[in-house]
Amino acid sequence: MIQQQYPSQLLERTVQELAKLPGVGRKTALRLALHLLRQDDEDVEKLTQAISQMKHEVKRCRVCHNISDSDVCPICSDSHRDSQVVCVVENIQDVMAVENTQQFTGLYHVLGGNISPMDGIGPADLEIESLVDRVRTGNIREVILALSSTMEGDTTGFYIFRKLAPFSDVKISVIARGISVGDELEYTDEVTLGRSILNRTPFEVKN
Amino acid sequence: MIQQQYPSQLLERTVQELAKLPGVGRKTALRLALHLLRQDDEDVEKLTQAISQMKHEVKRCRVCHNISDSDVCPICSDSHRDSQVVCVVENIQDVMAVENTQQFTGLYHVLGGNISPMDGIGPADLEIESLVDRVRTGNIREVILALSSTMEGDTTGFYIFRKLAPFSDVKISVIARGISVGDELEYTDEVTLGRSILNRTPFEVKN
Repeated sequence: MIQQQYPSQLLERTVQELAKLPGVGRKTALRLALHLLRQDDEDVEKLTQAISQMKHEVKRCRVCHNISDSDVCPICSDSHRDSQVVCVVENIQDVMAVENTQQFTGLYHVLGGNISPMDGIGPADLEIESLVDRVRTGNIREVILALSSTMEGDTTGFYIFRKLAPFSDVKISVIARGISVGDELEYTDEVTLGRSILNRTPFEVKN
Repeated sequence: MIQQQYPSQLLERTVQELAKLPGVGRKTALRLALHLLRQDDEDVEKLTQAISQMKHEVKRCRVCHNISDSDVCPICSDSHRDSQVVCVVENIQDVMAVENTQQFTGLYHVLGGNISPMDGIGPADLEIESLVDRVRTGNIREVILALSSTMEGDTTGFYIFRKLAPFSDVKISVIARGISVGDELEYTDEVTLGRSILNRTPFEVKN
């Protein structure tokens, strides 16, 4: 492709910076930049200020390591939640996904990723030691591992399981794997179908 | 869909602002915001500064109304270009598209849109009067209309044609419509194919 000739270096620099965002190519970046040029000064300032302020002021909750505006996030400081149950997830989006189910009333622990030797991520790069500390010092009844069912996720889960094994009064569970609600058996891969048969649950009549 | 619960209002505000960008939904906005949170402060500042600076400092070329860093854009101030030929386009992207062909050595005139009564855009909202002024005062030989082949584009072209009719020594032309290079006749719509037959050009042997 021919190198685009920008009529303005200010525009070109903005396009370059926008094109660094994930999923944004140079064409999209140009469209975004020209869109911003058409907006009111005030609206553009709202955007840049929101980004800057978030970047400078956002914190990590010192209990669960989720992002937060305060030292302890709203979930960890909510006295109505069951602080004895901790759901271990990889990242912030996973917290939001579980929260959206409205089925979980415990607290979270955000690891910040998975153990992945290929990417140079070891246990020390993740919030695993702080999870062990939480279990050691806190009054925790159950740790739920809600990690990806990838090799990295399984490795991370196994590592955490081993680390928490000494705490014999703490129950360690994993989220159920099975056929998605609404999916048909016929089209389900055999690993998932196999697991859903092994992990079958008693038939329940819902009232 | 359930209303997303954001763990941080700073994050939520950034997501809201990013989601105002064209083609960016709330999911993408969240992904972009979390990406920015992971970047170095310096890189994020580069982005916000580039946007702010562009927004505050970018100008419109006073000749062709293309965006520019100076009062007169690099194209209009290039003495090697043929200032007697003016290509009329709707917007900045169109200038870049024509420039990328490397087939045009004249100057441009950016209208800023098309006449569109449905959207409340009349001739006075576009840079049409300034085009007429350019033709009246400048030494212009030809005006090329490179507008969309939509009803709005055709209306705008016709309006300009009428406005420039008094200047009988100025040639007014439109860019050729026809079958795209590489396209097959079989799959071309009949309007385009019909036009390409009516507007056939003499066979030329390229050296």
